[in-house]
Amino acid sequence: MLRLRNVTKIGNSLIPTFRSFSSPGLPELTQVRHNVKRGDYAELTGNDVTFFESLIGATNLLQDGPDDLQGYNVDFWHSVRGSSKLVLKPGSTGEISEILKYCNHRRLAVCVQGGNTGLVGGSVPVCDEIILSMARLNKILSIDDITGIVACESGVILENLDAKIREAGYVVPLDLGAKSSCHIGGNVSTNAGGLRVIRYGNLHGSVLGVEAVLANGQILDLMSDFKKDNTGYHLKHLFIGSEGTLGVVTKVAILCPAVSDSVHLAFLGLNSFEAVLQTFKNAKRYLGEILSSCEMIDSISLAASVDNLKLKSPIAGYPFYMLIETSGSNNEHDMEKLNKFLQLVMDKGDVIDGTYTGEPSKMQEIWKLREVLAPAMTKDGYLFTYDLSLPLRSFYDIVKVVEARVGHMAKRVCGFGHLGDLNLHLNVTCGEYSNDLYHQLEPFVFELTSKLGGSVSAEHGMGFLKSNYLKYSKSTEAIAMMRDIKHMLDPNKILNPYKILN
Amino acid sequence: MLRLRNVTKIGNSLIPTFRSFSSPGLPELTQVRHNVKRGDYAELTGNDVTFFESLIGATNLLQDGPDDLQGYNVDFWHSVRGSSKLVLKPGSTGEISEILKYCNHRRLAVCVQGGNTGLVGGSVPVCDEIILSMARLNKILSIDDITGIVACESGVILENLDAKIREAGYVVPLDLGAKSSCHIGGNVSTNAGGLRVIRYGNLHGSVLGVEAVLANGQILDLMSDFKKDNTGYHLKHLFIGSEGTLGVVTKVAILCPAVSDSVHLAFLGLNSFEAVLQTFKNAKRYLGEILSSCEMIDSISLAASVDNLKLKSPIAGYPFYMLIETSGSNNEHDMEKLNKFLQLVMDKGDVIDGTYTGEPSKMQEIWKLREVLAPAMTKDGYLFTYDLSLPLRSFYDIVKVVEARVGHMAKRVCGFGHLGDLNLHLNVTCGEYSNDLYHQLEPFVFELTSKLGGSVSAEHGMGFLKSNYLKYSKSTEAIAMMRDIKHMLDPNKILNPYKILN
Repeated sequence: MLRLRNVTKIGNSLIPTFRSFSSPGLPELTQVRHNVKRGDYAELTGNDVTFFESLIGATNLLQDGPDDLQGYNVDFWHSVRGSSKLVLKPGSTGEISEILKYCNHRRLAVCVQGGNTGLVGGSVPVCDEIILSMARLNKILSIDDITGIVACESGVILENLDAKIREAGYVVPLDLGAKSSCHIGGNVSTNAGGLRVIRYGNLHGSVLGVEAVLANGQILDLMSDFKKDNTGYHLKHLFIGSEGTLGVVTKVAILCPAVSDSVHLAFLGLNSFEAVLQTFKNAKRYLGEILSSCEMIDSISLAASVDNLKLKSPIAGYPFYMLIETSGSNNEHDMEKLNKFLQLVMDKGDVIDGTYTGEPSKMQEIWKLREVLAPAMTKDGYLFTYDLSLPLRSFYDIVKVVEARVGHMAKRVCGFGHLGDLNLHLNVTCGEYSNDLYHQLEPFVFELTSKLGGSVSAEHGMGFLKSNYLKYSKSTEAIAMMRDIKHMLDPNKILNPYKILN
Repeated sequence: MLRLRNVTKIGNSLIPTFRSFSSPGLPELTQVRHNVKRGDYAELTGNDVTFFESLIGATNLLQDGPDDLQGYNVDFWHSVRGSSKLVLKPGSTGEISEILKYCNHRRLAVCVQGGNTGLVGGSVPVCDEIILSMARLNKILSIDDITGIVACESGVILENLDAKIREAGYVVPLDLGAKSSCHIGGNVSTNAGGLRVIRYGNLHGSVLGVEAVLANGQILDLMSDFKKDNTGYHLKHLFIGSEGTLGVVTKVAILCPAVSDSVHLAFLGLNSFEAVLQTFKNAKRYLGEILSSCEMIDSISLAASVDNLKLKSPIAGYPFYMLIETSGSNNEHDMEKLNKFLQLVMDKGDVIDGTYTGEPSKMQEIWKLREVLAPAMTKDGYLFTYDLSLPLRSFYDIVKVVEARVGHMAKRVCGFGHLGDLNLHLNVTCGEYSNDLYHQLEPFVFELTSKLGGSVSAEHGMGFLKSNYLKYSKSTEAIAMMRDIKHMLDPNKILNPYKILN
């Protein structure tokens, strides 16, 4: 019988933020490690720099030695490194339009960068592309307090946007570990998923409009103040999830759900993946419309947060853990539903131990354990991370298969993820980047995923690191159509080259 | 104080179904009424018919005199009439592929037809296009009882699909008056909205995959068994809401929400539109996650169901009515929320009278009043119907403006709609089609909507009847991009010509 105690305070008040992680040293240049042939683009000249300076001002342009641009050239995971010599920080859609028009004419390649929290090498240059930072487009334009529709520029940081619209009684229908750094425009451009897709769906459903600048500088206004607009082709979806390769998203309009007065979080320990599955089914059934998150973590994953970051888990010693969150409008009703659910899963013997809380600071501490899992794993040295959609019945099998395959080559092989969305994050760590381990993992993981009928990128996108594996999830015809669309919108291929379609 | 009585039985057991309505007589040929110049397409020959016969069999081909094809050439509202001489009823994606390949080669124009319940002349030919009926592609392919993901062919009737998946504990996240006739493929192709968008969002969020056949016969497999798939461009959205002009949707995969154990429906009478707005705000606040529908009906609209169809309204005598539905997983909790809400809106004086019920047959009777509003109006003679997204603050003003403008030319000017989605259906009826009234209404209604910052088609699409008005909701650049995409996918313009982009 589970003792439902209040969660004890875990960790300490100096829990690291997402942005403060970094592996030691610099990764090898992407061009070298992955043997990339530079595209047939123009080389940056002094005249180019002069033009950009005159357009956006010298203070919004960084071009010192490559080391000074390290934060822009290297991704958050230290898995890829570009060699850009120029970062542009435009302050408006108009400036972006002028920049792209110029680059398109000159055939200068451009890498669009939001918060640089991407996990597939999509947000940093592969070679020497000019980096177009969206950081200065950070204005919230409007919040409709009746409908919950918010319009903002694309460089607004997710956490800031969420904080602001919470004041009006709404929340961004998106939450993820990188929220303190990632930009909403990056989220939209990558169709980011995260922790609450089970409740609020994906961004194709909640993004009502975008403004995007095409490669030739044309500004495409597809913004909307409405939930419903069936006037012709729904073009905005071309920019949601195309990772900046078809246009630069400069504004977004999002339909936000009302903030929930009552939120609870349970952290549960289970003895088998079968018990995890049964508990998921019962969560759907008994928590119904208030279920807002359903996460699974295996013990090897959790150990990364506990061992590498010295966070404390409220319970320990189980092979599997689940985080189950409810969000509703009536505390009493929600508690009753949650209690009924917890009683049932304990009585069935699926959940062995656990704890739950409705206190915001304590929930945040538990969430932190989950949110920092992947960054914590980078402390092992180097992290290979795979973001797969898999059928529930074979959801966890791949972890065991890969573990057996790589043996002692890896420090850690583990899985966690958004069980409620059939989305597994498979992780393999080692002391430092190993080409041998890389070749043990790829394309094996993608081939297996494809055989299981899964998707080789559930929410992280293809970026640079997965772009070779598109064929495992897309048909030849679909890839051909993608190329046609790319050619139509960016014939000179200046936007985010080497990404998605390499 | 509102007396919360159980709803009394209304209407009779012979409430007409959506399909049984029809205005007397045939409308004028669209080509004549709207002065349409036939496109530069080939004329159908005996050889063509022989080819189609050999492909799909003589029994799946209709080509008798034009009168015999009336049900295919005339829309449900009797507002448009084509002059097709051939209906093809293929039975598989492969057959559709062969048909389109042939038509593309021969430059024969094709009109794709689902349940023919469209409201903008999109589902019938404008001239003599070959009609491609999807009626035989009516197989449900799979229902995943853990995830609620259903895959089916596009010709499955919405009501049939819903009934089948309810057996597995799920519902289609879409409900509309035409459900007994409309096809799910037509719903997807038109991005149909309906009664529960406020709860389940639009189809761009819930459709996980489609299979589509392109104009050249190529089969594009974009089906998916997963909620999350970020492998490259999200091409499926090009086929959601493009009304069959970019490809023929042959299969769909949809994520379906769990069936609600507890459903309640309130029918309320209110004295002003301001009271309607306040009640909507309070419904969002007090019903929170269980609010599944929020509809507004004005008295002139309701009178159409009551007078023209002899349905009985449970309450009468108010200028405005609202239907508020809740769907949840716990009857006791839901009743408590609903009671609290009703008590509040009565105490505030916003709701004057009303009734609510949780009994399925009684809810169905109340819903029928709402669902047959527009068909009931066709009994006046001829119906001009407008489907607008408007800001809430000026949501109802347009009804009064139009009423003043058309004066005695109209029998009825009224508004109802999905208030919760900011979607107004503005309706104007007259004894028979009047060109003078038409010109009083159009483009005036669209100009005014555009001035108010609204959308000229919230959920019905552009079809043929609204295709001239695209410019009121789409920028020049967006229209140009739509043309580029159309040209890329259907260079010979054989698919649904004269629709959307005329």
